[in-house]
Amino acid sequence: MKTIALLTDFGQSDNFVGVMKGVISSLCPQSLCLDITHAVPSWNIRAAAFLLWKSYSFFPHQTVFLVVVDPTVGSWRKILIVKTRHYHFVGPDNGVLSWAAEEDGVVSLVSASNSKYFLPQVSATFQGRDIFAPLAAHIACGVALSRLGRAEKKMVSLEFPRPQISSSRIIAEVIYIDKFGNAILNIKKEDFASFRKLYLKTKKGLVGLEKKTFYHQAKKGRFFLLEGSFGFLEIALKEDSAASYLKLSVGMKVEIILK
Amino acid sequence: MKTIALLTDFGQSDNFVGVMKGVISSLCPQSLCLDITHAVPSWNIRAAAFLLWKSYSFFPHQTVFLVVVDPTVGSWRKILIVKTRHYHFVGPDNGVLSWAAEEDGVVSLVSASNSKYFLPQVSATFQGRDIFAPLAAHIACGVALSRLGRAEKKMVSLEFPRPQISSSRIIAEVIYIDKFGNAILNIKKEDFASFRKLYLKTKKGLVGLEKKTFYHQAKKGRFFLLEGSFGFLEIALKEDSAASYLKLSVGMKVEIILK
Amino acid sequence: MKTIALLTDFGQSDNFVGVMKGVISSLCPQSLCLDITHAVPSWNIRAAAFLLWKSYSFFPHQTVFLVVVDPTVGSWRKILIVKTRHYHFVGPDNGVLSWAAEEDGVVSLVSASNSKYFLPQVSATFQGRDIFAPLAAHIACGVALSRLGRAEKKMVSLEFPRPQISSSRIIAEVIYIDKFGNAILNIKKEDFASFRKLYLKTKKGLVGLEKKTFYHQAKKGRFFLLEGSFGFLEIALKEDSAASYLKLSVGMKVEIILK
Repeated sequence: MKTIALLTDFGQSDNFVGVMKGVISSLCPQSLCLDITHAVPSWNIRAAAFLLWKSYSFFPHQTVFLVVVDPTVGSWRKILIVKTRHYHFVGPDNGVLSWAAEEDGVVSLVSASNSKYFLPQVSATFQGRDIFAPLAAHIACGVALSRLGRAEKKMVSLEFPRPQISSSRIIAEVIYIDKFGNAILNIKKEDFASFRKLYLKTKKGLVGLEKKTFYHQAKKGRFFLLEGSFGFLEIALKEDSAASYLKLSVGMKVEIILK
Repeated sequence: MKTIALLTDFGQSDNFVGVMKGVISSLCPQSLCLDITHAVPSWNIRAAAFLLWKSYSFFPHQTVFLVVVDPTVGSWRKILIVKTRHYHFVGPDNGVLSWAAEEDGVVSLVSASNSKYFLPQVSATFQGRDIFAPLAAHIACGVALSRLGRAEKKMVSLEFPRPQISSSRIIAEVIYIDKFGNAILNIKKEDFASFRKLYLKTKKGLVGLEKKTFYHQAKKGRFFLLEGSFGFLEIALKEDSAASYLKLSVGMKVEIILK
Repeated sequence: MKTIALLTDFGQSDNFVGVMKGVISSLCPQSLCLDITHAVPSWNIRAAAFLLWKSYSFFPHQTVFLVVVDPTVGSWRKILIVKTRHYHFVGPDNGVLSWAAEEDGVVSLVSASNSKYFLPQVSATFQGRDIFAPLAAHIACGVALSRLGRAEKKMVSLEFPRPQISSSRIIAEVIYIDKFGNAILNIKKEDFASFRKLYLKTKKGLVGLEKKTFYHQAKKGRFFLLEGSFGFLEIALKEDSAASYLKLSVGMKVEIILK
């Protein structure tokens, strides 16, 4: 069975995701849908790009990734099919595919234009159902990309935010907050391996950040930094939500003092 | 593989849906469960009937729809199996199946009574697990409906609310609110294609509603109406929740002034 | 297809569950993942143990249960594989598997130590992805347990809370609250079959509890007790949340007066 992995901001309270799977099952019964998540914050292209980037390589080669976070649905933005070294990606051309596809290595790009591979009726508001899902199904079932549309030379690419690092401080950005309240930063372990003492600057003064290897090492009530499973440093609080306590949100800049 | 599509108000925080899938896998291993949604508001038959109606036709022919929104579970309401032109539906006889089944065309009705096709132990409170899931599995695996119970002549049928339309105003009803906060009304595009200017009556006065074709066309902060993917008109607000701002809820009447 | 049933506290807002399924699909493509739930309250071993216990027997024999509620991830707690009479269980050795495994009958225990069956890179924070998911996949695909690690003699076992029962009262514990707000107690129907009148002691005085067989029998606004589908007595409120009205939470002791 060919895997189709879905990533959207549709939530699971409506029938949106279910209907997309119905369409896929109708068009390519031998495919198997797996959900990455459907809880991307509504219209948040960067969060979706991050989750796709940190997920794709764990899926079987030849998986088709179907990504619908598409605030400009119905407008003239392109609908992209990206073939990379090991995978296919289908999604709007708004950058959401870029971090994953570029890391795996883009082999070819097609913008979907052949309505023969869409549903017979295409709405202006739910192209996940009417265009994206059918495309993913047809690709999983072996339709050649060249039949789906025009070859393209380039795609919209998002820039990854870089931290500012000096000898006394790091200005970083919260790039994701997971459901445990761990705040993932855009910095890597190597970036301050040499520093002994770290402090987070907050409105109420400096808060100490211990360096830990795993969550259970930490003491209750103490904030700590560890290298999380996304490959980036996370601000955490043992069995509690660091993000809530420190009022952190995605996109926020944080300043870490090094001593 | 035969598709079984599930629609319930069980949520996904308990083990209810998982256990139903376990039962189905045990009884019909060659079936594949797909979720429509499990977030129907608790005990809300109309919301479930609407979502089923707007979903079923996107699934492969011969799909078995397993619908459990069943506030009278354990009482003497019938458990229905409806064969329509292209599908099977299993659910309580409370109207939840009616809009979908009637649109596709009812071929035959059976009320389940043969406990040989239930789980050996039937509880009074979780018949989704003990009766509905086994029935769906047996149907998917080819058991003839005549073996499951008695033929019935009719089912409970819900009435669809009709809007009141005059030359100066439309009194409509909010029939669904999706996770983006779009409020779906019981009116179709044709109902006021000829009107230029539309206003929603609110406690704070008239609010202009622009007519748009897709979400991105609208300006931030302006309310608009468009024909959504459910096939009905929706009140929307660009990249925000119209329902929250306008305090709309399902079942609420709204008055639209036409000029 | 071999079933792998997943139970975690990962939620479905991140990519954690999706990535685990990607890993499983990569390593054992002929397996099928089914979710029990991923909404176990974070780090709550008892709630997970309860849900696993009340779910496992509804799944096909030979199902592999993959349970990740693991507050001590990365520390030296063992990673267990439990073979029972009809199933396999994979999870941390913190008691989460004990109620289910002991009921089905433990045949053998192995602590996973052969990193050949882990992902090549093992993080200290997401062993669900790096260790547990690969183990479940390899077991589903037929790898002998003896190749995965060392035989163990015993596992951590949770004690089930017992109610205190006298002729005039029962002191019980809320062991689970479902999404409808029904509060499941650690008492069985037999425990007070002979009593006619029951009252719940609350801060505002005694609240009558009627005895019912199914939810719909009750009157609106009245609290009642029934034997729920978990096999325990539940405090319920018709089409409303008993737990919210009575401010009940998991682990809370409640006193029921018998007359």
